[in-house]
Amino acid sequence: MEMNLEELCKKAHDVRTKVGMLDAEIKNRTLCKAADALLAHEEEILLANGKDMENGRKNHMPEGLLDRLALNHDRILGMADGLREIAKLDDPIGEVLSMKKRPNGLIIGKRRVPIGVIGIIYEARPNVTADAFGLCFKSGNCAILKGGSDAIHSNIAIVSAMQEALFSMEIPDGALSLIEQTDRETTNRFMQMKQYVDLLIPRGGNGLIQSVVNNATIPVIETGTGNCHVYVDEFADFDMAVNIIKNAKTQRIGVCNACESIVVHRAVAKEFLPKLYEALEESQVELRGDDYAVECLGKELPLVKKAEEDDWGMEYLDYILSVKVVDSVEEAINHINTYNTSHSETIITKDYDVSQKFLDEVDAACVYVNASTRFSDGNEFGFGAEIGISTQKLHARGPMGLEALTSYKYIIYGNGQIR
Amino acid sequence: MEMNLEELCKKAHDVRTKVGMLDAEIKNRTLCKAADALLAHEEEILLANGKDMENGRKNHMPEGLLDRLALNHDRILGMADGLREIAKLDDPIGEVLSMKKRPNGLIIGKRRVPIGVIGIIYEARPNVTADAFGLCFKSGNCAILKGGSDAIHSNIAIVSAMQEALFSMEIPDGALSLIEQTDRETTNRFMQMKQYVDLLIPRGGNGLIQSVVNNATIPVIETGTGNCHVYVDEFADFDMAVNIIKNAKTQRIGVCNACESIVVHRAVAKEFLPKLYEALEESQVELRGDDYAVECLGKELPLVKKAEEDDWGMEYLDYILSVKVVDSVEEAINHINTYNTSHSETIITKDYDVSQKFLDEVDAACVYVNASTRFSDGNEFGFGAEIGISTQKLHARGPMGLEALTSYKYIIYGNGQIR
Repeated sequence: MEMNLEELCKKAHDVRTKVGMLDAEIKNRTLCKAADALLAHEEEILLANGKDMENGRKNHMPEGLLDRLALNHDRILGMADGLREIAKLDDPIGEVLSMKKRPNGLIIGKRRVPIGVIGIIYEARPNVTADAFGLCFKSGNCAILKGGSDAIHSNIAIVSAMQEALFSMEIPDGALSLIEQTDRETTNRFMQMKQYVDLLIPRGGNGLIQSVVNNATIPVIETGTGNCHVYVDEFADFDMAVNIIKNAKTQRIGVCNACESIVVHRAVAKEFLPKLYEALEESQVELRGDDYAVECLGKELPLVKKAEEDDWGMEYLDYILSVKVVDSVEEAINHINTYNTSHSETIITKDYDVSQKFLDEVDAACVYVNASTRFSDGNEFGFGAEIGISTQKLHARGPMGLEALTSYKYIIYGNGQIR
Repeated sequence: MEMNLEELCKKAHDVRTKVGMLDAEIKNRTLCKAADALLAHEEEILLANGKDMENGRKNHMPEGLLDRLALNHDRILGMADGLREIAKLDDPIGEVLSMKKRPNGLIIGKRRVPIGVIGIIYEARPNVTADAFGLCFKSGNCAILKGGSDAIHSNIAIVSAMQEALFSMEIPDGALSLIEQTDRETTNRFMQMKQYVDLLIPRGGNGLIQSVVNNATIPVIETGTGNCHVYVDEFADFDMAVNIIKNAKTQRIGVCNACESIVVHRAVAKEFLPKLYEALEESQVELRGDDYAVECLGKELPLVKKAEEDDWGMEYLDYILSVKVVDSVEEAINHINTYNTSHSETIITKDYDVSQKFLDEVDAACVYVNASTRFSDGNEFGFGAEIGISTQKLHARGPMGLEALTSYKYIIYGNGQIR
């Protein structure tokens, strides 16, 4: 039952107002029914996923990616639970953010409304399919999903199950669509469907995101890449610094809020770096330092290497850290603002002025004092759910919850006013 | 003193943090000094403008555009007053929009910050040069201005005068830049300077805006085009409807919040349309109606014409109105949502349910009941100034004041938290 791409986008556009007006109760019941449907159709979903896995193995997909692609009972249960959690969140739509009377008697209100039609472009992680639909739907938006070709059978099965639930609740058909053609040309055409689609959110690696940014005429929210720094100030508590770096680097290695680079004040580098080495040794974390860092660590150590210029901007997503030594907090801030991806940065310090300066001057979505960068996450921030972490400054910055999927409109009550 | 485009963008990027940290008092004094400088350099500015006018006449620029290009003492005074008005507005930067303590003791605050570097691409209106700089600077942003080639001498003179004021206040050099190359290739390269520029705002006609949307990799806020409707419901007060349409159509003809289309309920079309014709006749407003509208008006009347399909989506910016007759408010909403540009729409009605339905279901930045669309304006909304009217849903919608030129960052206070 494939559909012409333009028809599919238009169908979503045409029902956006109806979907945007659904009462919270209807939306929540629908989300719970969609969760039930995933479990009811577990067999078909696993069968479809089996095909994708088989193709993946045939195409020599790396183990890590195969693991992300694989579904089983627990993972389907996880997707269903995710939808139920979203059902429990407050409905963001309809809130009046402000309202005031102007001197001429006009009453001007600012009301939170859905964005309309949201396109999500992602890779071979079938759980994103349920998750992205849930967040878009709860915030009153129509979702058009474009997953990776490697997960196409799984995605079709998941979307069919959820669509059955939507149908039973009489939700308009365009509320959830999956683009079944996974060729590049279709994807590029999708990114230009500006007359029907209001927003694109790419979820995945840097290559995917850059391709969307470069080809889309639809507005994009960039998510993802994180070259996160921990700056160990001259007034740092060493134990805290070691603890936080160890957590930020090794607690989960492949995530965007993991630490990739550390910056150390010269006054403490000699004393601090060997302690850090010791703590990271059990996880076999390689340290790529500048000259002085290597000198402090000892260049004969097996996990110490000299950093190249490329290292400063690298998101390793691996057991590697770059190490830069600086003479001042100014130099640290400058290094971070030059090489970071505007994601999450932290300083370890006991000094009041230095901490304030760091909070003020570091240009990133999330700037921490004395805490791990790993907290940059919708759940940790109390949003209950997350569609991604924005690294741009427009519309939404940092972890994006349901509110990031909304816009506003002005509603103006008059009684005949003219200019 | 031309500068390589990339150097110019990088210079702004490099000083964005310094500019973003300026105290309100410094910014306000700088804006007043820039106003003084415009008046002090009036002679040079008028001389430069004379060259542009001469070239414009040589190139057979239409009268309307020549009028927008022309400067004189009053207009320079107007620019200076504009800067002084911006100085009087509250500084939006630094406000903490929310702050809360999480269960793990982290204190998470959301602080309003500048966007960083903003590029403004506009046409041959030299007053935009002062205005756009003022709004960007007050909101802590570096401005890179790219005006039309027809106004280049005027723009260079205006920017030089203002830069003198910035220099005297020791404001970093990159806070205000003008791109002096006005060829298309430079403009296109500018729209791709994503590593240095955070936001592009095109100000001008639809052609300019579409070219920016299609070529930019930097995020864009679309402003401008308005196909604004007035819907005269079956429960409308006719006098109010006539009054509002007359105001919205004729008070100022070339602006984006002027009314371009009216929609009339069939039950009242026969009685209402002749009254409207009478009221608009003195301004010689042409009415382009569907069959029934033409029948109600009388096709023999000199200002009545049959509408073509193209008319429904047209932003005339002229003494012309399209007239559509509908059977219901649903049909009216559907017509408006199909042909509008998401700018401003109004309903004239005495009915409660109909007014609520219109407010809920019309998809536009500003939706009015019983008032003229001409109020869609930053000053009328109480923002004190306006950089444009956004017709997209991302980041800012409707009239954009200083807050639309800001982003936020999360500042997180910890005491050693790890995950």
